[in-house]
Amino acid sequence: MLPLWLTISLTASITALASAILLSIRILKIKVKDPRIVEISSIIRDGAAAFLKRQYKAIMVFTVVLFAIMLSASFILENFDNRIPLTFLLGAAFSGLAGFVGMEVAVRTNSRSVDAAKERFEKAFSIAIEGGLVTGLFVTGLGLLGVSLLYYFTADMNVVVGFGFGTALIALFARVGGGIYTKAADIGADLVGKVEAKIPEDDPRNPAVIADQVGDNVGDVAGMAADIFESYACTLIAALLIGWKIMGEDKFMFPVIIQSIGILASLVALAFMGRVREENPFKTINSGFLSAGVVIAVFSLILTWFAFEDLSPFFSLLTGLIAIILLAALTQYYTSHKFSPVREVAKASQTGPAINFLAGLALGLESTALPVIVVCMAILAAFSFGELHLGGLYGVALAAIGFLSIAPLIVGLDAYGPIVDNASGIAEMTGIRGKVRRRLEELDSVGNTTKAICKSFAIGAAALAAMALFAAYIEEASIETINIAKPSVIAGALIGAMLAFVFCSTLLRAVGKGAFKMVEEVRRQFREIKGILEGKAKPDYESCIAISTNAALEGLILPGILSVAVPVIIGFLLGKEALGGLLLGNVAASFPLALFLAHSGTAWDNAKKYIETGHYGGKGTETHAAAVIGDTVGDPFKDTAGPSLDIIMDIIGTIALLIAPLIV
Amino acid sequence: MLPLWLTISLTASITALASAILLSIRILKIKVKDPRIVEISSIIRDGAAAFLKRQYKAIMVFTVVLFAIMLSASFILENFDNRIPLTFLLGAAFSGLAGFVGMEVAVRTNSRSVDAAKERFEKAFSIAIEGGLVTGLFVTGLGLLGVSLLYYFTADMNVVVGFGFGTALIALFARVGGGIYTKAADIGADLVGKVEAKIPEDDPRNPAVIADQVGDNVGDVAGMAADIFESYACTLIAALLIGWKIMGEDKFMFPVIIQSIGILASLVALAFMGRVREENPFKTINSGFLSAGVVIAVFSLILTWFAFEDLSPFFSLLTGLIAIILLAALTQYYTSHKFSPVREVAKASQTGPAINFLAGLALGLESTALPVIVVCMAILAAFSFGELHLGGLYGVALAAIGFLSIAPLIVGLDAYGPIVDNASGIAEMTGIRGKVRRRLEELDSVGNTTKAICKSFAIGAAALAAMALFAAYIEEASIETINIAKPSVIAGALIGAMLAFVFCSTLLRAVGKGAFKMVEEVRRQFREIKGILEGKAKPDYESCIAISTNAALEGLILPGILSVAVPVIIGFLLGKEALGGLLLGNVAASFPLALFLAHSGTAWDNAKKYIETGHYGGKGTETHAAAVIGDTVGDPFKDTAGPSLDIIMDIIGTIALLIAPLIV
Repeated sequence: MLPLWLTISLTASITALASAILLSIRILKIKVKDPRIVEISSIIRDGAAAFLKRQYKAIMVFTVVLFAIMLSASFILENFDNRIPLTFLLGAAFSGLAGFVGMEVAVRTNSRSVDAAKERFEKAFSIAIEGGLVTGLFVTGLGLLGVSLLYYFTADMNVVVGFGFGTALIALFARVGGGIYTKAADIGADLVGKVEAKIPEDDPRNPAVIADQVGDNVGDVAGMAADIFESYACTLIAALLIGWKIMGEDKFMFPVIIQSIGILASLVALAFMGRVREENPFKTINSGFLSAGVVIAVFSLILTWFAFEDLSPFFSLLTGLIAIILLAALTQYYTSHKFSPVREVAKASQTGPAINFLAGLALGLESTALPVIVVCMAILAAFSFGELHLGGLYGVALAAIGFLSIAPLIVGLDAYGPIVDNASGIAEMTGIRGKVRRRLEELDSVGNTTKAICKSFAIGAAALAAMALFAAYIEEASIETINIAKPSVIAGALIGAMLAFVFCSTLLRAVGKGAFKMVEEVRRQFREIKGILEGKAKPDYESCIAISTNAALEGLILPGILSVAVPVIIGFLLGKEALGGLLLGNVAASFPLALFLAHSGTAWDNAKKYIETGHYGGKGTETHAAAVIGDTVGDPFKDTAGPSLDIIMDIIGTIALLIAPLIV
Repeated sequence: MLPLWLTISLTASITALASAILLSIRILKIKVKDPRIVEISSIIRDGAAAFLKRQYKAIMVFTVVLFAIMLSASFILENFDNRIPLTFLLGAAFSGLAGFVGMEVAVRTNSRSVDAAKERFEKAFSIAIEGGLVTGLFVTGLGLLGVSLLYYFTADMNVVVGFGFGTALIALFARVGGGIYTKAADIGADLVGKVEAKIPEDDPRNPAVIADQVGDNVGDVAGMAADIFESYACTLIAALLIGWKIMGEDKFMFPVIIQSIGILASLVALAFMGRVREENPFKTINSGFLSAGVVIAVFSLILTWFAFEDLSPFFSLLTGLIAIILLAALTQYYTSHKFSPVREVAKASQTGPAINFLAGLALGLESTALPVIVVCMAILAAFSFGELHLGGLYGVALAAIGFLSIAPLIVGLDAYGPIVDNASGIAEMTGIRGKVRRRLEELDSVGNTTKAICKSFAIGAAALAAMALFAAYIEEASIETINIAKPSVIAGALIGAMLAFVFCSTLLRAVGKGAFKMVEEVRRQFREIKGILEGKAKPDYESCIAISTNAALEGLILPGILSVAVPVIIGFLLGKEALGGLLLGNVAASFPLALFLAHSGTAWDNAKKYIETGHYGGKGTETHAAAVIGDTVGDPFKDTAGPSLDIIMDIIGTIALLIAPLIV
């Protein structure tokens, strides 16, 4: 007979996957009537599939090389279990699968959402939400299933760490590649189309417009899915690893149970979100969050009592849940044009792009303060609660589990974003106007907010996952203290922080280079293809897709090598403690850098939108032009460099866990 | 009789001050013949003096409040020596004096340099170098004198720490205030004058032009002087404190002797720089550096042997000297348009300000890698050499001493920059053209390079000083380990890193706001004062000076409070170890952030200059316009936020040292 924990976890993960499949079937059954929509949508779909194919090929090379290295190492080194390379491969495969399925469904949902908007707002909203939730359920279902089964078959948490490393590696590539792809296309499309040729966004005459739409999917669906998959799996593994070392099997699977509840809670939330109303879609989303939060909190409370006869682990979990709410609220404050920070950026645009830049940068840098304090307080509180019962570091890992328990819903709402963004783009390209168009724009604007919330969730999740990994590393490496009075630890911390900066640099440079080429290509097409701007000749969409693809694949290499090689080198050269220093130094810098980039980028975007609603003269003014430049710079901030920093924190953590037994 | 160390130190410091006074007298004796030059120069002088007066008043309020708090604390708390508030006051006074004298001499040297350029290039160069060296000699002479005398009279290094805190506080205000002042004026002058009204730089018709000239002096002379004064004094104190704890009085004064040699070496270098030739002024500067470096190295080698009968302390010192050479070379590579990084930024400008901006950011972020590795290797090497003899942390402090031994010369060359910059500005405003003008421009371009070298010196010095303070803190707080596995230390490190980001934010925001007001004021004057653009009516320079002054004084408050309050709060709330974590986390983030800001800013500036020499179409093109926007954003990067980060690392360190005995 299966143990109770596995029964629960299998029930939850299989329910998740089955629901995802059922939702997909329901969506795919809907027939799209308008042939123009079908056509545009299929171009986007093909572009996305083609990119994913090339990206996965590149990733496979890297993965196989690492697999071979790990396999050889496992035969040479005594302390390196030879099952680890296999779990690594499985982690990579599961993460790749989640991203692939999510994206394939998303690129089929967008057209159906456009078609549904012709009937009713509510229908379009439901389809898009359900399409997004497919990703959310796939990510968490596969994550939970993979970790549970691997422990069941290996009975060794150290071996399961390989799974985490696999997910982190795929996440790195999916985030980095997707992020470069989407922004090279987006910036290229905007700079020549909107700024130079003065044609609207998503105009089919723009050769880069399809690459831009594809980018939304490979970046925000496949990339984000892999990102959260990684945080989810790594947190779970870190929490289990610590628990495994300090208590018996029946209790250490507690985090698995909590994540099972999280999945079921998201299905409850889906039911609550069925009854949306056009006047206030946010109310629906909030009620979804609220219902999921309540379900998780109530069940965790009960289960904690049954498992431990003590509520302190519940309070550690709750700390994580409260931290998300606060982080989401802070993100809203700093990035929504309802509040003064974004309005000040808009005001600064009056004196041109330079002052607009400075205002956005100042906003982003400032916005790091409160989230860091929230996370610090969560760590301190979770540690104290943990100390009451099972050890402080376990409490920190539980806070991360609590934070991530709501992941299925968050990922779902995030994947909703690019679906409705695409839907709005398809509407523009097929000439849909009037009421239907306004509905789609309303859906899109909701998507912008959910994306922003998800972004801060992803950053917070990555930082907490890194903390959980750090805690697990300390257990795993059997080190009592990591003393920062030692020069090797100081050097580790300095290099870890520096790595965050250099990592960002490689990404911004790749986007800049890709966008530069895209601009030249779009300019060339406008110049050489006669009748393109009159809408008489069709632009060459494929050449733009190729530019984005190549930029993304070239841009993958350096960050990939850096994030894997540096922790290994530091670990073997400077030792266990220095590796701990590297990890902490990196989190200390990556976390605020990621917040800064995400918040500045979103603030520029929304400052521009605020001006477009008629403030400071509205569209067509110098002020608006300045805001558009800020928005362009903000694009790779919020969608490439910022999110990629999420991954590097955790990739260092998983590598540290993997090589800990090998470092003397 | 005086002890030997004091005799040497008094000889060196009094020689420094006497030479500085003699140089000043020699410069002031030169009569300026051209009445137009006298007039413009006196306006700049009055503006600078007026600002310094108001700034010093504001600083005095803050200083007196802190003095009162410390004095009360010293009566209440047993472990807090009541002489500390007095040494604090003295540190503040000495640092203020060095900045004041340096600036007063610099603003009188500029006009004489212009006049001299009418005769010969060599004469103008010599006057400017000598004027700059007055600051260098004053800074180091007063620093050495203050620390030596205070220890002689108190016989307690713990008390001398107050002096370091005083210098750090003044440095903070001088850097922050000067940095905001100069960039609000500079950006305001450029945005309306150069970009909108299309009049040349330094044109007397521009109302903000005098504020801009004043800014060069209060930022680059007074601000930089206080910055290096602080690093110099704090490093000396940290090294002495560690030595004081681990060895006898005759030997622990070793760092004082090394700095005495440094001062004498700079006088030797001055002699070598006497014979400049117009064709290659850099050769002169390099020979100055070389001669100083050789003098320091040879004498330190001999003295180390006599003091310790062991050469390992010498190798620790040498590590620091080598580190400066490498840092200076790296800065050149990343910021000079002779090399590919800056040229790529210039190339990126072809697609507009957004891509130019991304390219500059990528360059700056990447440029953090090698300097951080250099500093890490210096720390590791210096620690190893230290361990051979006196303890590793002492070795790290000695590396910082070695690094700073060349300070008199570096500060001198830095202060040379604004002198020749002003000289060039005065020439423009008084209509000097032809050969004389070209000579002054040549001098100015040399100044830009020396300023860039000095900037990386200041950042490296601050980081090493922070390391020395950190080492001293560990000794002082009697803590064996600072364990980053503890949540309080993790929280300390995260908050320390975040503080660097928030600190930057306050500065960029202050500059942005000041520049915004300046732009509006210049636009208003162009609109309301009839005949201003035809040169018939005189602009209202004073109102622009007032705007910069107010922006600077308002901008001082928040960073001042933050940098003093946060370490105190963390120390008392989370304990000694967390305070250590705060310090390391802050250095880990501040050091790369400062490098990033300094290098990006300088690269944008030089990419613009590269385009102006005719590349990518030269002046008047869209490409140039994009580069000008990048340069504008870069201004507060390199001259306000970047340099101010130097100080925060050390201010946290001195506060940690001060309150260490008070934390249980």
